[in-house]
Amino acid sequence: MSDLLSPAQLEARLREIGATRYHNLHPFHRLLHAGELTKAQVQAWALNRYCYQATIPVKDATLIARLDDPELRRVWRQRLVDHDGDAPGTGGIARWLALTEGLGLDAGYVRSQEGALPATRFAVQAYVAFVRERSILEAIASSLTELFSPTIIAERVAGMLAGYDFVSEETLAYFNARLTQAPRDADFALAYVLERARTPERQSAAIRALEFKCSVLWAQLDALHHAYVSPGHIPPGAFVPEEA
Amino acid sequence: MSDLLSPAQLEARLREIGATRYHNLHPFHRLLHAGELTKAQVQAWALNRYCYQATIPVKDATLIARLDDPELRRVWRQRLVDHDGDAPGTGGIARWLALTEGLGLDAGYVRSQEGALPATRFAVQAYVAFVRERSILEAIASSLTELFSPTIIAERVAGMLAGYDFVSEETLAYFNARLTQAPRDADFALAYVLERARTPERQSAAIRALEFKCSVLWAQLDALHHAYVSPGHIPPGAFVPEEA
Repeated sequence: MSDLLSPAQLEARLREIGATRYHNLHPFHRLLHAGELTKAQVQAWALNRYCYQATIPVKDATLIARLDDPELRRVWRQRLVDHDGDAPGTGGIARWLALTEGLGLDAGYVRSQEGALPATRFAVQAYVAFVRERSILEAIASSLTELFSPTIIAERVAGMLAGYDFVSEETLAYFNARLTQAPRDADFALAYVLERARTPERQSAAIRALEFKCSVLWAQLDALHHAYVSPGHIPPGAFVPEEA
Repeated sequence: MSDLLSPAQLEARLREIGATRYHNLHPFHRLLHAGELTKAQVQAWALNRYCYQATIPVKDATLIARLDDPELRRVWRQRLVDHDGDAPGTGGIARWLALTEGLGLDAGYVRSQEGALPATRFAVQAYVAFVRERSILEAIASSLTELFSPTIIAERVAGMLAGYDFVSEETLAYFNARLTQAPRDADFALAYVLERARTPERQSAAIRALEFKCSVLWAQLDALHHAYVSPGHIPPGAFVPEEA
């Protein structure tokens, strides 16, 4: 059994997971941000990532449904607002659809998720199941990948604007909003985890929850890389880009 | 909406899914059966496939728990017997562990599933969730990949014995048992589906259930192929073969 960590040590341990397992380290993201993908490959990324985006409020509502504390529910509810918006056409999911439309994909096709890789859906479902089935602490700790997202977003927006003539600041509007939302959310979740994980067992559970979440993100890029970067591996039924 | 199919037409449609989407068509299986993998790659296959094997009785019990008919529960119970055995060291899971041990893997490590690819676990969990959440008809139809397994097993055993000096008839004993179990199970499940799927909607649901199950198997091989055949793509935390 591991030793009890101080809050500062636990935070360092959590940040170390980001430094070694967050998906900004994945080869697919390096290609995406370096402008080295084709438009078809960027389409495949946006199409698959839509499944993740569209499920995040379901994940958050799954957590809220388990919380007894009105204060905590109220704070977490902001995430629903951010993703689902206040009116049709607003919020993170709508901004993601603006991205996929900007890439030339039909919104109905994207929304249907029919062309998404099965592996994408499996990973996203595993995330919701984790939040439904594990402890509240683990469910909240699994959101801590947002600690690491400002870096990747900054790299992504700069890299994609420089590297691809088919993306614009408008199509990437999703990410601008996340630059302020993600740190606010991550600060809250981190404070919760540091305060509530005060035994070695609970600290270990929080650490493993964040590792799990990193694997949810990583597995999605593995599947994209295998299907759309390695030649000849698009699985039956999945999106086939026009130029492929 | 599609037309109502006769039972024979529905069976033909289901078999066509096998002919186009079953994982015997996956490049990883072609390599496995042709003797073209390294021992380390065969280890990775057996280690990951253990997660699937170990979860099959959980999947079957999930279905049994939803059945009102004692007759149907009794028939389906045989699958638990086949996988879990009648005594320690018997049954399909024990035979799979004999395979992984024959390949030089530690049984405790295999059982822990710690080295398995996250994508393997996500796919296997998606299968259990499907059987828990969809209609009984869909849950049963999703088992119909066993219609296609005798062919793949015959290819696999012959190919692996010819191709690898590190496998023997003893280590492949799992597959001999499946050669009689799978057709018996598949015949029963097929008869159930053909009898109960008598509207276009239910026929379509059965067809999609089998497609889903094919994608569960296919996604596992995609993940193996990406991690262990394409160089340099083993995800953080997963099994690293000694020779790699």
